[in-house]
Amino acid sequence: MEAVLKYIDHELSDALDRLFELLRIPSISANPAHAQDCRKAAIWLKDYLESFNFSAKICETPGHPIVMAQTLSECSGPHILFYGHYDVQPVDPLDLWTKPPFEPYIKQNEQGEDVIFGRGSSDDKGQILTFLEACRAIYKTTGQFPVKITVILEGEEESGGEHLPDFLASQKESLRPDMAFICDTDMATPDVPAITAMLRGLVGEEVTIHAANRDLHSGLYGNAARNPIQILSELIASLRDGQGRVTIPDFYEGVPDIPEAIRLKWQDIGKTNDALLSPIGLKEAAGEKAFKAIEQTWCRPSCEINGISGGYEGPGFKTVIPAKASAKISFRLVGNQDPLKIRKNFRQFVKDFIPKDCSVEFEPHGASRASMVSLEGPVLEKVSNALKDEWQYETAIVGSGGAIPVVGDLQREFGIESFLVGFANVDDCIHSPNEKYNLRSFHKGIRSWVRILYALRDVNT
Amino acid sequence: MEAVLKYIDHELSDALDRLFELLRIPSISANPAHAQDCRKAAIWLKDYLESFNFSAKICETPGHPIVMAQTLSECSGPHILFYGHYDVQPVDPLDLWTKPPFEPYIKQNEQGEDVIFGRGSSDDKGQILTFLEACRAIYKTTGQFPVKITVILEGEEESGGEHLPDFLASQKESLRPDMAFICDTDMATPDVPAITAMLRGLVGEEVTIHAANRDLHSGLYGNAARNPIQILSELIASLRDGQGRVTIPDFYEGVPDIPEAIRLKWQDIGKTNDALLSPIGLKEAAGEKAFKAIEQTWCRPSCEINGISGGYEGPGFKTVIPAKASAKISFRLVGNQDPLKIRKNFRQFVKDFIPKDCSVEFEPHGASRASMVSLEGPVLEKVSNALKDEWQYETAIVGSGGAIPVVGDLQREFGIESFLVGFANVDDCIHSPNEKYNLRSFHKGIRSWVRILYALRDVNT
Repeated sequence: MEAVLKYIDHELSDALDRLFELLRIPSISANPAHAQDCRKAAIWLKDYLESFNFSAKICETPGHPIVMAQTLSECSGPHILFYGHYDVQPVDPLDLWTKPPFEPYIKQNEQGEDVIFGRGSSDDKGQILTFLEACRAIYKTTGQFPVKITVILEGEEESGGEHLPDFLASQKESLRPDMAFICDTDMATPDVPAITAMLRGLVGEEVTIHAANRDLHSGLYGNAARNPIQILSELIASLRDGQGRVTIPDFYEGVPDIPEAIRLKWQDIGKTNDALLSPIGLKEAAGEKAFKAIEQTWCRPSCEINGISGGYEGPGFKTVIPAKASAKISFRLVGNQDPLKIRKNFRQFVKDFIPKDCSVEFEPHGASRASMVSLEGPVLEKVSNALKDEWQYETAIVGSGGAIPVVGDLQREFGIESFLVGFANVDDCIHSPNEKYNLRSFHKGIRSWVRILYALRDVNT
Repeated sequence: MEAVLKYIDHELSDALDRLFELLRIPSISANPAHAQDCRKAAIWLKDYLESFNFSAKICETPGHPIVMAQTLSECSGPHILFYGHYDVQPVDPLDLWTKPPFEPYIKQNEQGEDVIFGRGSSDDKGQILTFLEACRAIYKTTGQFPVKITVILEGEEESGGEHLPDFLASQKESLRPDMAFICDTDMATPDVPAITAMLRGLVGEEVTIHAANRDLHSGLYGNAARNPIQILSELIASLRDGQGRVTIPDFYEGVPDIPEAIRLKWQDIGKTNDALLSPIGLKEAAGEKAFKAIEQTWCRPSCEINGISGGYEGPGFKTVIPAKASAKISFRLVGNQDPLKIRKNFRQFVKDFIPKDCSVEFEPHGASRASMVSLEGPVLEKVSNALKDEWQYETAIVGSGGAIPVVGDLQREFGIESFLVGFANVDDCIHSPNEKYNLRSFHKGIRSWVRILYALRDVNT
């Protein structure tokens, strides 16, 4: 193992070149105009995996393709499944990027540390390459693998992940992994490694309210004609009560209480309101008044407006009352909240809310339950220790506000647990302009996976 | 006069050709990309005016130019000033237009009447050409004009009209008109001609709420971080109370009561809620519950959201909490409401509303008082009778929800009254896709102005 770690240190700049090649492909899955770029990223990954003794193939779906690969050599260890995604978020607002989002570069930060900038550097191309570069280094150094590895890389994680569940179901018989690893999460702090054990689910809904049968002159009709922007605003305002609680009927059904011990532990590792909010320029926690900021993001359900649009949005002014207005609204789910029931109750809430002479259209965007991963067991211990060996800090067990629906899918299809190990940082600006990934995360991330893979060698399954 | 009217009937298709030439110029004043098109429209009008014995010039402003023209021949009648605007509204949403907005065409409606379609056909190019074609026909038939005429055509009416007041002030000494005519309003019904005697003022404000210092992942920060779309929605919802009244302090200061006689008269000419709302696909009046729809648009102040924008608005879904969200909000003013005081009170209202760790930016878009035009006098009577002669229905005195700030400017600079005579119809879709102008409005509008100009000949000033 030491030889592998040395190889990684020595060959880091080559690994970076490979990451940059992948980052240059604008694989934005939400925008149909980038469908060919998604395919290009998939083909790049297939070729790359084949270069270190994986058999890899492009698996077609009705949407973007999935890359599946397996180690060719026999080995006695457990069979682990690694999941990641090669697609990235859209890049607007483009004018807030310092350099073009798909022209990655390295720049020193104020602490003198090297940082990789570019869309996907952290979410998730940089993270998946920590695992794949670890596999590559192991193979290039030793000519074999310590465990059997299956890699599944999807291209729709950032746009609903619609076709992954069917694909996994189709692999149910032939693929029998013992456990899964996912690299799409954060460290607890830039020094403290983390295993993420609580993940929120997600329900997305696009709501369009229609009022008049055409755009109106606001002088000729203002006051008297329904304004769908006004109605939409009132609807959004009514989604939370004075205590910040979501007002949709039965919304909190299935939401578990947070154990006091866990609440206190999070304060211990410095997750105060100020620590979470001051880096983003805010002071007070929004949302539910009864909960701290970290509790609200890790283990409380949310209701967020992700986009709103209506009327004239160009330069200058246009005195129009638009015929329609729309919003993209998402709910993060915890515990046993039922995404389909929440969608149904939300839609009924909206229908009851709007005036009778208006109408509403809904477009669903994903529906996934929250995932719980067990907080003990031999695998968790081995992974935890391997991370501690690399980072020299005790590994923290944390939650995450982001949805990783595949955890539930893997549980359902293969009956296996997922371990979420990631090296991103909270300031990586994922989904935002100037996304970055610390070079330290990339380098020590690769090293961490080598330690984890060797530690898993003698797990009994 | 009869010879002139005959000439108009005979030469209508040539007049239409000229209107179509003007309609083909996309003079959208709100969009800086169309600045050259605005100039092109101004030059077209200058050349056109010169073709029937007006001396015309392009007057530069810091924005779009103003066209000013005067009759060259001497005459004994009063000096009338005609105001119109050659700029048009933006055209989005473009996909709702049946044909491209700047490719005008004529099509029969369900009643078998010819209708002119195209951006600006009604507001205001078609309307200004009713007056100018009347002048042209009089000159081409008689070689002279019955009154002295000054024409002022601006290019910023649809985008705030910022530079017109300074221009008018600069003409104060040299230009001494006795009265003004404006053709930018509707008929009372498709058969009943109207003089518009109540015009609302306008205050426009663009509000941008800033929360976090960058776009955030809604999974990682959802609930805990301020969402500016949520705040903006709550702000908009709070702008009206349960009775539909605007909640900004002192908003209704200076709003006059509506005389009962006028309220009843409007019902007489069929201005019911249903008559106003059913053509646009609505049933109930929005806004203030204490007032009928027509009262709300003609003589009550309004608060409308003309546009809203924030977060991800493209196809698909993006789980983002944006750093900012903005809305374009306008207030229509009546009576003695003070636009600057309302702007100030609105801004204070917003500042008091938003959380302390957020900030707000304002961009002003115009501020004009409401205008009142007297409801009696010899000129009003002559115009009223001239319209009746053409349309064979008693002329109605009505209000209008649209702002025509120039009325106040002309009162202030020249001390003259404006008479608002227009031939548009409520279903002309001004500011909307598929804007139209009935050919009947164009034809009989030209004839109406001939009658009015001849009737004004012997007004004593």
